[in-house]
Amino acid sequence: MFRAVTRSPGPPDERRVDPLLEVRHRGRGKRPGDAYVKIVRPFESKFQRGDDEGELIATERTVLDRRGRTAALRKLRTWLIGRPIHSEREEHERLTKLKGLAIFSSDNISSSAYGPEEIMRVLALAGTGALTLTLPLAGLITVMLAIVTVSYRQTIKAYPKGASSYIVASDNLGSTMGVLAAAALLIGYVVTVAVSVSAGVAAITSIVPEVFDYRVVISVSLVVLLMVGNLRGIRESGTIFMIPTYAYLVVMLAIVGFGVVRVLTGSVGEFQAPAAWASIEQGGQALGLFLILRAFSQGAVALTGVEAVSDGVPAFKPPEWKNARTTLTWAAIVFAVLFVGIAFLVTVLRIIPDPTEEQTVLSLLVRHLTGDGVILVIAQIATALILVLAANTSFADFPRLSSFLGRDGFLPRQFAFRGERLAFTTGIVALSLMAIGLLVGFNASVSGLIPLYTLGVFIAFTLSQAGMLVRWWTRREAGWRPGLLINGLGAATTAVVALVVGTSNFFQGSWLVVVLVPLLMALLMAINRHYRDHAASLQIDRIPDAKEVAPRPIVIVPIARLDRPALQAIAFANAISTDAVAVHVTNEPEEADELRQRWPSWASSTTLVVVESPYRALVGPLLAYMDALQEQAPDRPIVVVLNEVVPRHWWENLLHNQTGLRLKLRLFSRPNTIVADVPYHPTRD
Amino acid sequence: MFRAVTRSPGPPDERRVDPLLEVRHRGRGKRPGDAYVKIVRPFESKFQRGDDEGELIATERTVLDRRGRTAALRKLRTWLIGRPIHSEREEHERLTKLKGLAIFSSDNISSSAYGPEEIMRVLALAGTGALTLTLPLAGLITVMLAIVTVSYRQTIKAYPKGASSYIVASDNLGSTMGVLAAAALLIGYVVTVAVSVSAGVAAITSIVPEVFDYRVVISVSLVVLLMVGNLRGIRESGTIFMIPTYAYLVVMLAIVGFGVVRVLTGSVGEFQAPAAWASIEQGGQALGLFLILRAFSQGAVALTGVEAVSDGVPAFKPPEWKNARTTLTWAAIVFAVLFVGIAFLVTVLRIIPDPTEEQTVLSLLVRHLTGDGVILVIAQIATALILVLAANTSFADFPRLSSFLGRDGFLPRQFAFRGERLAFTTGIVALSLMAIGLLVGFNASVSGLIPLYTLGVFIAFTLSQAGMLVRWWTRREAGWRPGLLINGLGAATTAVVALVVGTSNFFQGSWLVVVLVPLLMALLMAINRHYRDHAASLQIDRIPDAKEVAPRPIVIVPIARLDRPALQAIAFANAISTDAVAVHVTNEPEEADELRQRWPSWASSTTLVVVESPYRALVGPLLAYMDALQEQAPDRPIVVVLNEVVPRHWWENLLHNQTGLRLKLRLFSRPNTIVADVPYHPTRD
Repeated sequence: MFRAVTRSPGPPDERRVDPLLEVRHRGRGKRPGDAYVKIVRPFESKFQRGDDEGELIATERTVLDRRGRTAALRKLRTWLIGRPIHSEREEHERLTKLKGLAIFSSDNISSSAYGPEEIMRVLALAGTGALTLTLPLAGLITVMLAIVTVSYRQTIKAYPKGASSYIVASDNLGSTMGVLAAAALLIGYVVTVAVSVSAGVAAITSIVPEVFDYRVVISVSLVVLLMVGNLRGIRESGTIFMIPTYAYLVVMLAIVGFGVVRVLTGSVGEFQAPAAWASIEQGGQALGLFLILRAFSQGAVALTGVEAVSDGVPAFKPPEWKNARTTLTWAAIVFAVLFVGIAFLVTVLRIIPDPTEEQTVLSLLVRHLTGDGVILVIAQIATALILVLAANTSFADFPRLSSFLGRDGFLPRQFAFRGERLAFTTGIVALSLMAIGLLVGFNASVSGLIPLYTLGVFIAFTLSQAGMLVRWWTRREAGWRPGLLINGLGAATTAVVALVVGTSNFFQGSWLVVVLVPLLMALLMAINRHYRDHAASLQIDRIPDAKEVAPRPIVIVPIARLDRPALQAIAFANAISTDAVAVHVTNEPEEADELRQRWPSWASSTTLVVVESPYRALVGPLLAYMDALQEQAPDRPIVVVLNEVVPRHWWENLLHNQTGLRLKLRLFSRPNTIVADVPYHPTRD
Repeated sequence: MFRAVTRSPGPPDERRVDPLLEVRHRGRGKRPGDAYVKIVRPFESKFQRGDDEGELIATERTVLDRRGRTAALRKLRTWLIGRPIHSEREEHERLTKLKGLAIFSSDNISSSAYGPEEIMRVLALAGTGALTLTLPLAGLITVMLAIVTVSYRQTIKAYPKGASSYIVASDNLGSTMGVLAAAALLIGYVVTVAVSVSAGVAAITSIVPEVFDYRVVISVSLVVLLMVGNLRGIRESGTIFMIPTYAYLVVMLAIVGFGVVRVLTGSVGEFQAPAAWASIEQGGQALGLFLILRAFSQGAVALTGVEAVSDGVPAFKPPEWKNARTTLTWAAIVFAVLFVGIAFLVTVLRIIPDPTEEQTVLSLLVRHLTGDGVILVIAQIATALILVLAANTSFADFPRLSSFLGRDGFLPRQFAFRGERLAFTTGIVALSLMAIGLLVGFNASVSGLIPLYTLGVFIAFTLSQAGMLVRWWTRREAGWRPGLLINGLGAATTAVVALVVGTSNFFQGSWLVVVLVPLLMALLMAINRHYRDHAASLQIDRIPDAKEVAPRPIVIVPIARLDRPALQAIAFANAISTDAVAVHVTNEPEEADELRQRWPSWASSTTLVVVESPYRALVGPLLAYMDALQEQAPDRPIVVVLNEVVPRHWWENLLHNQTGLRLKLRLFSRPNTIVADVPYHPTRD
């Protein structure tokens, strides 16, 4: 509590305060005349001295130590996301190629789990006969992947500090194209989370159909789990992520190898669909070019993971770009083997997708090859895990991209702030909320979400490749001719895919992306415009010649009655001004008379002005009074010293402070006004 | 804008400010040496000088003149509820008996419109034969009314300043009983609004059955209309209220007279129920004592309006209590004639209530007597109007009672504040919202709401009468013996009715009152306890010997970067302190280095302390730093000078001020801390 009231009057007994917290202790040495100055540092547990003059370094305790009602919140937070991490820790957390493959390629590799199925589901619209096209389409997609991978190897080398499409496009095609790429990617990342989690849950419901009805709840819970995990900063701890990725790789490569051997040796028969499926209406559409293009578009989702490695280049151990490139190549190869292998097997074994969506094609394949046993369960668990991990890729990418955008002023600045665990808290929370929205809105259906997915990513790919093209052409660095060729091919390929995806799936959902991307772009650019105007309006044009002193402020203290808070406010006003005025606005003249009579014995040397308010308004007359004072001295700022009682419980706010709050809001928008809040803490007795 | 930044340095050119707004103009007279002082009053349009030293009186312009974005809101408000009214106007607004009858008795008189019907609806549960009991029950209720009226005549004389049950019970039975009466009345008033409006709307739907489905919407709109009207202060303008009351009186007395004549002359036949009603299941219950008591309880609603006149005694012209008594007596007589007359007619004409609830009994009666013509329409319109007006009685009573409770600290203080139009704004709005809740919850059904209605009012009646009993007994004033007898009879009667109403309708809805009244009582008493504790903790025990000066505050200025708002905040800090410290909390050491290098040329004589925050927290390290300063000088308050940019649009708050807000919340609960907000208004360019 502010002690003015309880102190005895007279000149205050002031202690000097050292802002650098080095309390100098003057004393005498052992021999006479041996004066010395000893520096005591009583605050070492909270602050250390920095290298430079006037610099302190806060310790962890400044964050963890809390008093009063926020202490419990702090404990909950520490329990949930852990103790804060020192900024310098970041440097030490670099990834080996093996860990990098696990973290950044899980999105890509995991596409092999649902990519073939998505192709087949479209083809099946033209009857099961059309499913023979699965393998050729998978082959085509693999060729595209090769082109994109080679292209991105160039990009990674050129942008070793992070080759996000946003950065490459901004750098070479201008800020508008950069924002377009960013908008497309942001949407893509949100959909990635929704798709991957849905697919992961589908892998589980394939073997435990009883939980199929709860898939939305399960999906949402997984997203919340990912959110909390990422707020803890699990991004840095690659080891636990290696397990699912490599488990999936080993299990799937083994099953595909086993399957190919059995097919080549003719020791496995064709798939027989359950009788129940026959009753479900399927097929019926003609197998035209449009349907084939749609099937291709659904499969092209497999390429979407390529961006992740490029984004994360700076996270690798040095030489960063070389390690990232190698990782990218390996990821592409592993994916291609699995993707083509699975497509081959389902085609020759004539597996058809489950029209009830209860079982995935992959689980049908594994069951057909290995039976209803432990291998199926292992395969499905590994699939589920890598798919959830793939969602986690977005939890690394979205916050990083939004931090770039926050830094550059396209998103609110808080996106650029690292939280206590070095994670971009705002981005992680925003991504989680939007993904949950999608999961609920689309009922956690993979097929429903896929059309939203691919278009955004391919727009970003195209802009990135086009950016590289411009870069080669303008810089003409060593090797620019092959570079131009490679990225040109990449740009052409991705542009074609973007076009195919956008048009063939337009009515299935990509129209939403076509609508959302420009809206998001407009938002990003409006935010940027605001920040730029804002910064310009606050900039200081000149460095002042000497220390600036504001004109002596006019100090007024609105008081409601003679009580402790009022006394405290007047005491403070008198401490900062020699001619503070107490103002009592009232609609009860008798009460005001009483106040005026008691005043001299109470605060004799402070002027009291009573403003009678016969219309019973408080704020209006007070502001008008301030205007009248202001007119007399337009240069002097007016300080309004408010006394406010700090409630002990939140509900007490309903019984107090209503007027104070309204007054503060109005004063806040009054020019040349300073509001000084003198809170009074009632003592418990 | 605060001009510190643009002024050239040097001692400020300060103008003197006269807090009493009397700018003294020193000059010379015409003859040499003839100095004079002329007092100029440039602020007369906004402030007049009061009679006492240091007193100003605000004019209407201080309320009406607004700048900026609040100006439009002000205009809307003036359009909706009118210009503010001067406090002194209240004295002039007294009521004649004629107006008093219209305003305060509409609740009572209007009960005649639905009272008989409510009795009949219960009796009809035992078959149409039981309806012959309607007349005897109506007679019994009229006898009770006589007793209560005579009782209340005593109360009015004893409490000429307002004879609300709350006041009478508090005064004689202690505060707890007073609060019980208040809680019962508050609930009763809310139900009155809901019941009266529902009944008024039922009068309309009887002749325009097409709007029956919209009765909730119509009812809610009427409540909103009453709310706005009362916020305008229509309570004072009795004339427009006289029309519906007297129209209803004239029309109904005429119809009842006409009906009685026709019945006595035998020129009207018995009522024949439409064939359609026969198919609706009715009757079947046995006509036991319980059912008769329930019917009586439903009819007792007719007595609920008696309290209104007693509440409003001070609103009458002098001699207030005499005029109020006369008005009360007349109201009772008029009501009795109508109530018994209608009960007589429906009994002899064998009118039965419409089981579909589409037509009221009163409209059936009028239609039976006068046919489907213009008289029916007039009667229904007059009924609808007086019923809505009866709701308005609660709009006078509820806010007045809640203002007493606010004044005494049982409800939040804002209930005691008169708004711009002298109306108790908070009470009016609270009543409207609760009544709307009831209307929606009970689907605007009169029969559904009635059981909630009567019990609360009769509890209050009983307490008021019992209070009078105690008063006679303890004071033994002139005429105490007959007084004791009258109020004793009144107390016994109302207590019996309260008991009958509470038990017979318990499961039909009065259980809700039995639950709500104690809850509301507990709330009122908790609020009172809080206010008392609060006032005690703020009270000043001693009058200080001399002017109190707070210890010189420690002033710190947290700054984020070198911009105009920061400069302005530092300028203010230097104006109130000679050793203000600027604090820069940062997680980016490079940026801090740059700031430190530019600092000397920028604010050379203000100390800059850089607090490096390697855990990226801002609030925690700043508070820890303040604690470290505080430990060095526990007596000195710490002033935190915050610079904040005032956004030009509300949405800009999403992009700024997040940290500032969090900081303010934490600082607000820190003892010995003063927050000075220096808002910066960006210039438009």
